[in-house]
Amino acid sequence: MTSTDSAQQPAEDTAKGTAKAPAKDPWDLPDVSGLVVGVLGGTGPQGKGLAHRLAKAGQKVIIGSRAAERARAAAGELGHGVEGADNAETARRSDIVIVAVPWDGHAATLESLREELAGKLVVDCVNPLGFDKKGAYALKPEEGSAAEQAAALLPDSRVTAAFHHLSAVLLQDPEIDAIDTDVMVLGEVRADVEIVQALAGRIPGMRGVFAGRLRNAHQVEALVANLISVNRRYRAHAGLRVTDV
Amino acid sequence: MTSTDSAQQPAEDTAKGTAKAPAKDPWDLPDVSGLVVGVLGGTGPQGKGLAHRLAKAGQKVIIGSRAAERARAAAGELGHGVEGADNAETARRSDIVIVAVPWDGHAATLESLREELAGKLVVDCVNPLGFDKKGAYALKPEEGSAAEQAAALLPDSRVTAAFHHLSAVLLQDPEIDAIDTDVMVLGEVRADVEIVQALAGRIPGMRGVFAGRLRNAHQVEALVANLISVNRRYRAHAGLRVTDV
Repeated sequence: MTSTDSAQQPAEDTAKGTAKAPAKDPWDLPDVSGLVVGVLGGTGPQGKGLAHRLAKAGQKVIIGSRAAERARAAAGELGHGVEGADNAETARRSDIVIVAVPWDGHAATLESLREELAGKLVVDCVNPLGFDKKGAYALKPEEGSAAEQAAALLPDSRVTAAFHHLSAVLLQDPEIDAIDTDVMVLGEVRADVEIVQALAGRIPGMRGVFAGRLRNAHQVEALVANLISVNRRYRAHAGLRVTDV
Repeated sequence: MTSTDSAQQPAEDTAKGTAKAPAKDPWDLPDVSGLVVGVLGGTGPQGKGLAHRLAKAGQKVIIGSRAAERARAAAGELGHGVEGADNAETARRSDIVIVAVPWDGHAATLESLREELAGKLVVDCVNPLGFDKKGAYALKPEEGSAAEQAAALLPDSRVTAAFHHLSAVLLQDPEIDAIDTDVMVLGEVRADVEIVQALAGRIPGMRGVFAGRLRNAHQVEALVANLISVNRRYRAHAGLRVTDV
C-alpha cells in the first residue's frame, strides 16, 4: 500500500531561501478552438461519438477511415461541418490526430501514416483488451502500452494518450448534453498535454486532467476492463472523476 | 479504442421468453458492523489512516505489526477502541484482514501468515510501484498483481483487493470528516466483494464499487502512479469517483 501522496514534493514547499518563479497555474490552458482535429477510426462508434461531440462544441473535425467513401458517409450523418476523408488525407489536414482504431489495426495503421503524422499532435485512445467468457482483460503490448507503441512507431510525432474511458453510447446520444467525466491525459511534453486537456474541456461536462507520463499509460488503457465490469454490474455507462482537483 | 459499453450484455435485456429471477440489487450490501477488522501494516501511514477511519465509524479494529509493542503504541494514539497486536494475533482475531504492508514485504508477510489467514476475508491494498527521478511507475508482479500474488500464496483465504487510491494525509487529518472518493473493490466471489464494499461504505464519503475480477487488479494497483502525478501537478490529494453509478 503506497499512499498517493507519499511522493509529493511541491516545489513551493522548499524552505530554501532561493527565489523561485511561481508554478504555472495547471488550469491555464491554451485556446485550441482554431485547430483542426482528425479522428482516425472515425467511423467506429467511439471515434464517431467523439467526432460528434467535438464538432458540436465548435471544433473543425475530419473523420478518417481506410475508405474515404465510408468516412464521407459517416461525416454526412454527423453534420456540424464534419468532413470525411481517407486516413492519410485526414492526418495531413489535421493539427491534432486522435487515434481511435481497433487495437488489432493499431500498429499497421500508424506505421502506414508515419509521414503524414510527422509533426502532428497525436492523441492515442486505444485500449488493448482481450475478451473471453469471464469478460474483458488487459493485454500488455510489448512496448508497454498502445501509447508507447505509437510513440515508438511515430518518432517524429508528438504522442499523447487520452479519451480512454468514454462510453460510445453516451457520446452518441443526442438527448445527452454533457458528458460527466474527467479525461486523463498523459504525455511527455507539458505544452502538448495541455492542448489535449483544452480539447477535452471543449466538450460540456468533460475536463482534461494531467495524469502522468506515457510510461504510466498502460494502466489507464487497461482500466477500461474494470469499467466494463462496472457497467455490467450496475447497468451503467461509468465515467471517472478525479476528486480534490 | 474500445468503448466501455461494448461488452455489455445485461441479462434482463434478453428477449427470450424464459422467466428469469430479477438481478440482485447491487447496492443491497450486508451489515458488517459486527465484524472485526485487522490491518496488517497498521503502523504505516496508510494502514493507520484506514484503521482510524474504520474505528471512528464504529468498526472494531486491530492493527498489526511485526512488533506487538509498536502496534500497541500506534493503537493507543488512535483511540476509538483500536487494539494493537503482532501480525499473527491480528490475523487470528479478525474476520476481515486488510493487507497494508509495503510491497517489499508483501510476499514474505503473507507466506508467514498462511495458517492464521485461512478462511479469512483478506483485502489486499498493496500497490507495487517503483520510483526514480521521473516519479513513480508501476511494477508488474510475476503473478500479475499484488492481489493475485496474495491469492496464490493464500489458497485457503478469500482474497479481494480494495482501498488502493487513498491519501494517507486525508485519512489521518482530524479536520476532515468525509473522504470524497469511491473505492474500487475486486474479487472472484460476489458475497466477499460485497462485504468489502459495505466496509468501505462505513466511512463517511466513501463508497465501495465492484470493479472486476482479480485478473484486472494490476491496473487498479498501478493507477496509484498516475494519482501521484496528479497530486504533484495539482498539489492535491486526488481520489476517484465512478460516475453514472
